[in-house]
Amino acid sequence: MTTPKIPTEEEVLGWMTTLSNWGRWGPDDELGTLNLITQQKRAQAGSLVREGISVTCSRLIVPETAADVTSIPPLHYMIRTGESAPSSGPGGSSDFIGLSFHGLTITHLDSLCHQFWDGKMYNGKPASMVTADEKATAGAIDQAQNGIVTRGVLLDITAVKGKDWLEAGEGVFTEDLEAAEEAQGVHLEEGDALLLRLGWYKRRQELGPPAAGRPGLHAETLPWLHRRGISIIAADASQDADPSGYPNLGLPIHRVGIVAMGLWLIDAANFEELVQVCRRLNRWEFMFTVAPLRFKNATGSPVNPLAVF
Amino acid sequence: MTTPKIPTEEEVLGWMTTLSNWGRWGPDDELGTLNLITQQKRAQAGSLVREGISVTCSRLIVPETAADVTSIPPLHYMIRTGESAPSSGPGGSSDFIGLSFHGLTITHLDSLCHQFWDGKMYNGKPASMVTADEKATAGAIDQAQNGIVTRGVLLDITAVKGKDWLEAGEGVFTEDLEAAEEAQGVHLEEGDALLLRLGWYKRRQELGPPAAGRPGLHAETLPWLHRRGISIIAADASQDADPSGYPNLGLPIHRVGIVAMGLWLIDAANFEELVQVCRRLNRWEFMFTVAPLRFKNATGSPVNPLAVF
Amino acid sequence: MTTPKIPTEEEVLGWMTTLSNWGRWGPDDELGTLNLITQQKRAQAGSLVREGISVTCSRLIVPETAADVTSIPPLHYMIRTGESAPSSGPGGSSDFIGLSFHGLTITHLDSLCHQFWDGKMYNGKPASMVTADEKATAGAIDQAQNGIVTRGVLLDITAVKGKDWLEAGEGVFTEDLEAAEEAQGVHLEEGDALLLRLGWYKRRQELGPPAAGRPGLHAETLPWLHRRGISIIAADASQDADPSGYPNLGLPIHRVGIVAMGLWLIDAANFEELVQVCRRLNRWEFMFTVAPLRFKNATGSPVNPLAVF
Amino acid sequence: MTTPKIPTEEEVLGWMTTLSNWGRWGPDDELGTLNLITQQKRAQAGSLVREGISVTCSRLIVPETAADVTSIPPLHYMIRTGESAPSSGPGGSSDFIGLSFHGLTITHLDSLCHQFWDGKMYNGKPASMVTADEKATAGAIDQAQNGIVTRGVLLDITAVKGKDWLEAGEGVFTEDLEAAEEAQGVHLEEGDALLLRLGWYKRRQELGPPAAGRPGLHAETLPWLHRRGISIIAADASQDADPSGYPNLGLPIHRVGIVAMGLWLIDAANFEELVQVCRRLNRWEFMFTVAPLRFKNATGSPVNPLAVF
Repeated sequence: MTTPKIPTEEEVLGWMTTLSNWGRWGPDDELGTLNLITQQKRAQAGSLVREGISVTCSRLIVPETAADVTSIPPLHYMIRTGESAPSSGPGGSSDFIGLSFHGLTITHLDSLCHQFWDGKMYNGKPASMVTADEKATAGAIDQAQNGIVTRGVLLDITAVKGKDWLEAGEGVFTEDLEAAEEAQGVHLEEGDALLLRLGWYKRRQELGPPAAGRPGLHAETLPWLHRRGISIIAADASQDADPSGYPNLGLPIHRVGIVAMGLWLIDAANFEELVQVCRRLNRWEFMFTVAPLRFKNATGSPVNPLAVF
Repeated sequence: MTTPKIPTEEEVLGWMTTLSNWGRWGPDDELGTLNLITQQKRAQAGSLVREGISVTCSRLIVPETAADVTSIPPLHYMIRTGESAPSSGPGGSSDFIGLSFHGLTITHLDSLCHQFWDGKMYNGKPASMVTADEKATAGAIDQAQNGIVTRGVLLDITAVKGKDWLEAGEGVFTEDLEAAEEAQGVHLEEGDALLLRLGWYKRRQELGPPAAGRPGLHAETLPWLHRRGISIIAADASQDADPSGYPNLGLPIHRVGIVAMGLWLIDAANFEELVQVCRRLNRWEFMFTVAPLRFKNATGSPVNPLAVF
Repeated sequence: MTTPKIPTEEEVLGWMTTLSNWGRWGPDDELGTLNLITQQKRAQAGSLVREGISVTCSRLIVPETAADVTSIPPLHYMIRTGESAPSSGPGGSSDFIGLSFHGLTITHLDSLCHQFWDGKMYNGKPASMVTADEKATAGAIDQAQNGIVTRGVLLDITAVKGKDWLEAGEGVFTEDLEAAEEAQGVHLEEGDALLLRLGWYKRRQELGPPAAGRPGLHAETLPWLHRRGISIIAADASQDADPSGYPNLGLPIHRVGIVAMGLWLIDAANFEELVQVCRRLNRWEFMFTVAPLRFKNATGSPVNPLAVF
Repeated sequence: MTTPKIPTEEEVLGWMTTLSNWGRWGPDDELGTLNLITQQKRAQAGSLVREGISVTCSRLIVPETAADVTSIPPLHYMIRTGESAPSSGPGGSSDFIGLSFHGLTITHLDSLCHQFWDGKMYNGKPASMVTADEKATAGAIDQAQNGIVTRGVLLDITAVKGKDWLEAGEGVFTEDLEAAEEAQGVHLEEGDALLLRLGWYKRRQELGPPAAGRPGLHAETLPWLHRRGISIIAADASQDADPSGYPNLGLPIHRVGIVAMGLWLIDAANFEELVQVCRRLNRWEFMFTVAPLRFKNATGSPVNPLAVF
């Protein structure tokens, strides 16, 4: 491979303007790149369901503290159990779950208010529309209430790189994406979902929770993502390489992607089962569905994305 | 219509045995009626995606107390807001959500450990496997980790009944189901999802939260559900009429359905948008997907089921 | 009794300035009226412990929704139970509790950041120091980390009024306070805690949760509270009459008291046991202790205030 | 010092019977050693209030994960903040707190249902009375609703040992307790609260959260605690040395103390401020008050115990 040209931080900051989708779908738009998923695209996705196989892209949600849990661990409390269920007649069980889902361990979808730049969220709405009292009164998850149904394409970057997983801070470049496309015989098109396997969840399963950092897309890929018209990215890490090499931006894919482009992101996915199915069927495209909880004025949702063949 | 024959409570209790699926798919099975969803059935579901339209079947989750909230209201707290976001550079928002999802207001999927009878859950596992400490160590939601993808059929019972909604305690009988099938030109088959519109959510939107009771399937439909091989039922109430007329069983569809048949149920769905699309397309069958959160050892999950045309 | 002179809202608003304690104990003070509790006052309080009787002034915290629960009900979930405790050897139980304690049902202490006026809290600190991210970085409950120990005096206003309880919106005036003092043979002095029995909790126990409104101190008492040097008020309602008759101020005791005077308030107390002991001993003064949880940057704390004789 | 005689595990298990207080205060008693606090004892405690100084014995509750947080960290979410408070007129702040208080970091009081032995709690009540559904229907914290008010005595074991803190697993023996009594010129009597400074919180402040283990009372002290009639122990670790040297009992002070003796325990206290005051006043006895939250059917409570001089 050639050495990719690394943009300066100033150049990446410039993409906040040049890659911006603000106004592209109207002044009030809160759907962002989901606008790229047309009815035709959904119908195409349906046509990919042939074998009748469905595969989860979610990690298991485990109520435990770990090194990569950045907020509280998931809460899980029983309200009723079977321990005292009568030996005759009815009984039942129920529970309470609590999630601070943003972070590095729970598979979740960010809504477009999750990130701000210069005091604004996607399409220019003021950050101040997200308050402790009223919650996310703009850019909230319920914009995606009808779910995301599109063609999904898994790019297994680990195969291109010839390793089990990428390392913390290791960036994926445009040429890696295109090398994977070529190796797998697929081509990402407008409206598609890009599923990015970096082996990061495999590493967690084998070596335990990482203490810091993660691999991810290098900022250099942003123009490519924009040009291709990717509607949503799901990664088995959290999209951005960390450290990203851009100290002011911090997370360029999150900043430029969500705020400027209105790009939807799924962090902390799991492609371990999916990659097996793709290899077995020798098929890297499928129907991809994401059905966020319709939690009013929330900044995202835990999700169980499905790949259906 | 003829007067349906109402079974006695003793007869319904007898169905605990005669309609039982215990052992049908092996002694360790925890999938129950999801076994009826074959690869062919999923492929058939995919073939129903033609117009490329996706519709939510979930209610909005609103963090408020109401007359029909049987446990705590949903919890929603902001961790970071945009109120103090800097006017220059990065900012972000995140939140915590908490749900006691069983009950009458949050669209959710019950896993098979949600109900017990005679100290046992589906397939004979002891109720005592659900504990405060270890949670649901059997019959948990992650059995459905790969999601539910099947052919869905909406039966609009309100149209058959010629009313906006059924009343609390009003039962739906086999002949109502078959009348709806005939009126809509559909036929439910093995592995299908039955979506049951009773108008109950429409009533809530128009008249406010009901203080007590709900319409639902009469116990008399249990043999029909078993014979037809329904894999999952989603209702805009909570499946069972309440009061059901069976004081010992309480909720016969929940008891016989979940415990004996291993039948999966989605309570508190929303078909208001879906019924409009069905009417407009004059199409009552579609791809139906349910993707429960993979919460370890949980007794169910809030869900946003999707109907895709 | 004479007809008390009712101040206009403008007059009460003027007290924001004329009754203000801003700067009185230094520019950085966050203790407010707790400064009035001197070592001598605490020693005096200790000298009131003679019979060796301790009485709770807290209501029972019950995890249930009720008409007067203004936020979520208390959360209570078991982590370990005794249901599966082994018949031989060790076992144990533990639980999780969650409280949104401000409101009308949980006995709690407000810290001085709980109320703002014109964008400021007590002693002129900006309201913006209380954020979703950092919580209460000023005026937080841990200012009272060493507890409140002072002479407490219960004034049983119901006895003066000759009724079981005051009604919603019924105000207590200076002359009522002084009539109670005279009837009971006590005199409130600088640093004392005023315990105000309005019978409101008795009414709740007898008639159930009130749907709206409550009795409380009329705004007219503010100069008296200031003049007497009351350090803390605990009421079996929530200090302010509601409706208060002051639409702009809403809750004058909370606004002028907390923001201008730095006055500490305990809402939703319980004096049903205490009034019995006071009557039996014919003693209306006692040691009063309040020990708020030392929750970092919190806006108050649930408390169990004790009266010790 | 002489070498203390170390009892075998069998001997300690025998104390379950020989040191038992079951039945001592009646068959239904749930107060245990709090029965030893008489009115005279409370009056004596009041007489110790002379300087008028009150000191917290609680740690700060910090909503953060740490190595010694055994369950979830404390939850703290803002409901209203001052970030958007209007510059004119009223505003306010409020919050939600959530605690899984048992463990090693939050100062809390165990109620007598917190520990079981052979399927029973103190006074023979079955462990099965603590359920997920009904919570602690016996041995719950509200038994101490009127608070604990007694004479407190701080024994500074670190001074006796001549070190800043005891190490993990280091046991305190009867002779250490008596050496501290002698050095400080105090004598613990029936009904007194024993406050045990092991320096463990000081160590946490200086070296950070300990990864494992803690110092504490050796099981050998149990007969002494019983003989002296200690009503409650508060330690700046969690009473029991860990490891305790008794693999079957695990935590002998918790097991024999709570279950057999009905002894009340406060874990994870803070005596850093208190020890300074004791040294300065050269006074090691004081009024000690504990006011648990009156949370219905809870297994304990976070507390802010006060020492008043």
